[in-house]
Amino acid sequence: MAIGKNVRRVDAFEKVSGSAKYTDDFRVPNCLVARVVRSTIANGLVKSINTEEALKVDGVVKIITCFDVPDIQFPTAGHPWSVEKAHQDVADRKLLNRRVRVYGDDIAVVIAEDDIAAKKAVRLVEVEYEEYPVVLTCDEAMAEGATPLHDDIRKDNVLVHTSFTTNNDCTFDEVSKMDGLVNVQGKYSTPTVQHCHIENVIHYAYMEDDRIVIVSSTQIPHIARRVAGQALGIPWGKIRVIKPYIGGGFGNKQEVLYEPLVAYLTTQVGGRPVKIELDREETFACSRVRHAIDFEMDTYVRPEDGRLIGRKYCGKSNQGGYASHGHAIGANAANEYRMMYQDEKVLESETYTVYTNKTSAGAMRGYGIPQICFSMECHMDDVARAIDMDPIKFRKANMMKLGYMDASGIYCHSTGLEECIEKGKEIIKWDELREKYKNQTGPIRRGVGMAIFSYKTGVHPISLETASSRVILNQDGSVNLQMGATEIGQGADTAFSQMCAETIGITFDKVNIVSFQDTDVTPFDTGAYASRQSYVSGGAVKKASVKFKQRVLDYASYMLKISADNLDIEDNKIVHKTTRQFYLDMETLAMEAFYSLDRSEHITAEATNHCKNNTYSFGCTFAEVEVDMAIGKVETLNIVNVHDAGTLINPQLAEAQVHGGMHMGMGYALSEELKYNKDGKPLNNNLLDYKMDTAMDTPDFKVDFVETHDPSAPYGNKSLGEPPTLTQAPAIRNAVLHATGVAFNSNPLTPQKLVERFLEENLI
Amino acid sequence: MAIGKNVRRVDAFEKVSGSAKYTDDFRVPNCLVARVVRSTIANGLVKSINTEEALKVDGVVKIITCFDVPDIQFPTAGHPWSVEKAHQDVADRKLLNRRVRVYGDDIAVVIAEDDIAAKKAVRLVEVEYEEYPVVLTCDEAMAEGATPLHDDIRKDNVLVHTSFTTNNDCTFDEVSKMDGLVNVQGKYSTPTVQHCHIENVIHYAYMEDDRIVIVSSTQIPHIARRVAGQALGIPWGKIRVIKPYIGGGFGNKQEVLYEPLVAYLTTQVGGRPVKIELDREETFACSRVRHAIDFEMDTYVRPEDGRLIGRKYCGKSNQGGYASHGHAIGANAANEYRMMYQDEKVLESETYTVYTNKTSAGAMRGYGIPQICFSMECHMDDVARAIDMDPIKFRKANMMKLGYMDASGIYCHSTGLEECIEKGKEIIKWDELREKYKNQTGPIRRGVGMAIFSYKTGVHPISLETASSRVILNQDGSVNLQMGATEIGQGADTAFSQMCAETIGITFDKVNIVSFQDTDVTPFDTGAYASRQSYVSGGAVKKASVKFKQRVLDYASYMLKISADNLDIEDNKIVHKTTRQFYLDMETLAMEAFYSLDRSEHITAEATNHCKNNTYSFGCTFAEVEVDMAIGKVETLNIVNVHDAGTLINPQLAEAQVHGGMHMGMGYALSEELKYNKDGKPLNNNLLDYKMDTAMDTPDFKVDFVETHDPSAPYGNKSLGEPPTLTQAPAIRNAVLHATGVAFNSNPLTPQKLVERFLEENLI
Repeated sequence: MAIGKNVRRVDAFEKVSGSAKYTDDFRVPNCLVARVVRSTIANGLVKSINTEEALKVDGVVKIITCFDVPDIQFPTAGHPWSVEKAHQDVADRKLLNRRVRVYGDDIAVVIAEDDIAAKKAVRLVEVEYEEYPVVLTCDEAMAEGATPLHDDIRKDNVLVHTSFTTNNDCTFDEVSKMDGLVNVQGKYSTPTVQHCHIENVIHYAYMEDDRIVIVSSTQIPHIARRVAGQALGIPWGKIRVIKPYIGGGFGNKQEVLYEPLVAYLTTQVGGRPVKIELDREETFACSRVRHAIDFEMDTYVRPEDGRLIGRKYCGKSNQGGYASHGHAIGANAANEYRMMYQDEKVLESETYTVYTNKTSAGAMRGYGIPQICFSMECHMDDVARAIDMDPIKFRKANMMKLGYMDASGIYCHSTGLEECIEKGKEIIKWDELREKYKNQTGPIRRGVGMAIFSYKTGVHPISLETASSRVILNQDGSVNLQMGATEIGQGADTAFSQMCAETIGITFDKVNIVSFQDTDVTPFDTGAYASRQSYVSGGAVKKASVKFKQRVLDYASYMLKISADNLDIEDNKIVHKTTRQFYLDMETLAMEAFYSLDRSEHITAEATNHCKNNTYSFGCTFAEVEVDMAIGKVETLNIVNVHDAGTLINPQLAEAQVHGGMHMGMGYALSEELKYNKDGKPLNNNLLDYKMDTAMDTPDFKVDFVETHDPSAPYGNKSLGEPPTLTQAPAIRNAVLHATGVAFNSNPLTPQKLVERFLEENLI
Repeated sequence: MAIGKNVRRVDAFEKVSGSAKYTDDFRVPNCLVARVVRSTIANGLVKSINTEEALKVDGVVKIITCFDVPDIQFPTAGHPWSVEKAHQDVADRKLLNRRVRVYGDDIAVVIAEDDIAAKKAVRLVEVEYEEYPVVLTCDEAMAEGATPLHDDIRKDNVLVHTSFTTNNDCTFDEVSKMDGLVNVQGKYSTPTVQHCHIENVIHYAYMEDDRIVIVSSTQIPHIARRVAGQALGIPWGKIRVIKPYIGGGFGNKQEVLYEPLVAYLTTQVGGRPVKIELDREETFACSRVRHAIDFEMDTYVRPEDGRLIGRKYCGKSNQGGYASHGHAIGANAANEYRMMYQDEKVLESETYTVYTNKTSAGAMRGYGIPQICFSMECHMDDVARAIDMDPIKFRKANMMKLGYMDASGIYCHSTGLEECIEKGKEIIKWDELREKYKNQTGPIRRGVGMAIFSYKTGVHPISLETASSRVILNQDGSVNLQMGATEIGQGADTAFSQMCAETIGITFDKVNIVSFQDTDVTPFDTGAYASRQSYVSGGAVKKASVKFKQRVLDYASYMLKISADNLDIEDNKIVHKTTRQFYLDMETLAMEAFYSLDRSEHITAEATNHCKNNTYSFGCTFAEVEVDMAIGKVETLNIVNVHDAGTLINPQLAEAQVHGGMHMGMGYALSEELKYNKDGKPLNNNLLDYKMDTAMDTPDFKVDFVETHDPSAPYGNKSLGEPPTLTQAPAIRNAVLHATGVAFNSNPLTPQKLVERFLEENLI
């Protein structure tokens, strides 16, 4: 059995030894370099571009401006396509934009023989602008008279506004008039942060006859193909996308970034290869960031039992200049607020997603849930505190239970949340420390806090969930496993290989995964996002493997003259299904299948998994912190994540996944924020000024699991890709609240923020 | 309908524009260069190798000698594997050979950071030999006391000797005693020639974890994978072979040349990429050549009707140092002699394939048939001349007819040979010129000659014929066609695309062929050789396309609620099978199949064609020549090939195929020969001294076809890859005989040979 084992990652050796091949390692000879000419204003219109001096630079091949590109608007979000127009992503940008909406917008591009020439020419391009007032916050953008960023498609800056109520019979207003309830209100806000994947945004493209080949560091090769086709206005079959190993994505590469542009550029230079590689500053400012969302929460609770009676919610999501994943993220946040806790009476919710002149916000690990988890879990602690109830007891009284079904029909098939909380409590010594750290004074104070989450597994039923997989027999009895799903560092290739081995009945070492996707031959899959792959694409592995196994047994039946119904595969051997008697090894069968003069058959199997289900993962973070009041420094003494991710395919990989997520969550809690000046220019878009935790800043992470077996999943498994990063910020904030009595309502908890507030509160 | 149309080659633009990507265009960065240290003797033993000085060269990474490599013997022929030991190729070499059998044998290899360092180090490697007498001809090698080249596997130099007789009741000896018959005897010999593909032998390899990736200019990626696995003694599934476009192969790349060595080398440098590229001199001397075969023919004919009564045949095939394709080529020649003409009584045949110290002979376009065609068709003219019969009338009396079945059961399903001859006769004005050029004298003489051939299509039943193909639907209604069969310049990709379009019912432009093979994901196919692909792999295209079409119609049936039995595809549209009413276009169907929220299905189909049939192609060459007696120069005034290759998939490509073959045949007729000194050292292994025809030497080729529809073929088609190159040499020799009365019994007909003979015969 391969499932549940700590097998070595299939790519471990290559990644450790440095031999793993990434996009730039595959660049073909004679490749041109493209550099984007970026706007130096955040809001306005390009009046003219003068390329005369730039064209004189030795090595410059061509300069293309926003006045040259096709008049086609396209979307960039890495969502599955919808055949219904209303469900398609917002097409609000061109290959190069004349109407500038962000600082660093793509207005022209220089193609040159080398990077030095390209950069030199970029500096010599002269641009004349018409400038408009810059709007950076949702409120500014929604204010009367604000210049609409996309007046071609909408007259104000609200990309989408949605609202819902969970009850037709009772309004929040009516709840507010009920007797005996405690009201707690809070405003919370979350910052703009960036993914900071090691490998910057990089793609190159060249032509094969009338087709365009794009090699891209992407999470979503099949979607990149579609969007490039859309953007260029050519049939999608004319595009081929190849995805090598990628150096991190975290959602930023669930966006079709410069693939369309680079595809277009090769068509403009006779099919010669052209590369676009953003530097770190551009990756920060000109790819995507996590949405900054501001929340208002208004809650009525019954103090006796801590039961939520009614809640009101408003979220305003700062979209930046282009729609990207747009409202999906704001809506996801609102949904989590509805699902994670339920009210006895009503939840009234409103969400705005608003265009501003900040960097466009897109998908990032957690997809709106880190934001809502910060806000929600701060608020829940505030509510519990208001009624003087233990935050855990309060949460248990209100949180999602087994059998819950959300408005879209997603059913809670399994939950280990309560056990997760119990484990976390024990590890952090909750009861002891909550008591011990009560009512501290003095310059150094300690506290413990916690936060919980639920997380869906994939995007059904909001979007299509579909994945295919193919299994190919080799002569030595090993198999090649070809996935449309992508390895993006998370270990998917290893997990899929384990699934394949398990289902066929061969050992793990007999599965060779084809790691690189090539849309010409790779089975279709929408790609790595929404923590969907082990659930949805894992289902495709299972279907293809079952089909493959049947073909092998049929061939064995032909060789042995024994009905396939009586045969099975175990440890690379064909055995009798019930007696387990050994008949043949897989290699003997494979050799016969390939080379039989009587019946040569190349055994492969391919299957689609159209997944029409979804399920919830759960978990929590517990944190113990020490606050140095004088300098506003929060030190995390102890932090633990406990997850219910269903059955673990590979516990060691799962733990590694959680480690990475916790690190990201720690930055969100304490240090990371992309800042802008009033003109919308990013101020710290580099890894020196943008503060990510280093190894020195990082405590030892504790990780534990509660293994449930989810009945809707191919192998009992549930989402684990994104959940680890959701709850560090609120757990730490709640620990700081416990330590200091001060409720910080925005992350990150930087020393500056803490000191200012402690001064305000006369604590220092 | 796509079959029979002159559609543009799918790779035309890329190849003409220079953007097509070959092996060296894909080389990964940081690639090491390997250079082979070659023996400077042709027969002997390496006693010691001193690498001390070579290792001092800056940039040298490692030197591996014949004393270091695994003690594994492996074969190199690109034959399908046989599970029966007796049918496996002869394993007679190691990665590097201590026992040297050819001049330039592989005895060590230098791995360096660049080619300059590698070359410099190669020159500094000191080798001490034990030398044995060199044997260059079959007779020398078979002589008493000749040193056996492979005494580990056989005690003499005869690799294989086979004989057969077509009649149990009557011997050739008995025929020789019959009355009234005319006896004609002849000895004929053919030279060593080389393929001279533009792209030399080139491969590189690197490791992915514990697997080895080989990128190779090969005709047979799946076989290269197997042989590399064998040679290294590792499971075949651990090898991955990628085949980009190749710059010609002509059979030389139906050999697994340095793939095993380069695969081994990367394992010796921690998986770093290593390249081996032979230069032209090495490609001549150290890859493969066409077998030089000497023939003896002894024939009894009835003069009244020209009927062959009995023949005796002996062929001696010069194998060179290693077995390679070995006896298969000698046997193929003997077989053609049996099939092309039939005797009233008996044919007695003997064939020897003999190891010598010449360059190893392997597969080359025609695979023994150019040799036998030269000998047979010279001899047939000699016989016809002996009984004073028109050579055409004589051939018609004895040649293969419809319904013939050879000893292995291959049936003549179709033949247009007689019509081919009639067409050729007319084009060359045979009757008029045979009369006109009779009995010439003087310094300039003209003549016409002809020759015929038959050619099988693939290797059934001698070896396995198996091929798979996969068809993948794209969102725009186009398809990707994935073949294990390989494009090697012949236009296979275009022909397969036409077949696929035809069978599915879509237009040719909707088929994107995946030209590059990658054994990890490419359907299995043994590759490009034996003119098999359009017949065998074409059958796989048909099966996969039929299966694919059915899946499309099933999906259409679901969309339309009309039985799939009533649906068809025509011009990219789903129509009613009988009324041809339009229902849906393929793109609409494809979009629904991909993105349906009800039934998402990624439509693909894959099928194996285990081909258990074979069929004969036919054709002839007619030539008109002018001989300048004084300088021995033969000018080809007019030359025409007429082919029965069954139904033509693409007439223009077919004609191009014939042009290429005729050019190769002209060199064989008049100028090409690789020469050796007495020590076995090649003398003219470069393109300056080895005389290939240039454009200036080449007459306008005339090409015509007789289209039959072969009932055993997927599309009525028969072999055309090799046939065009078979009969130029005998046709020209017979024309020279007609012009001068002198029968030259060895090709090429060089001025030196002609002048010497004319002097001998007192003609000049």
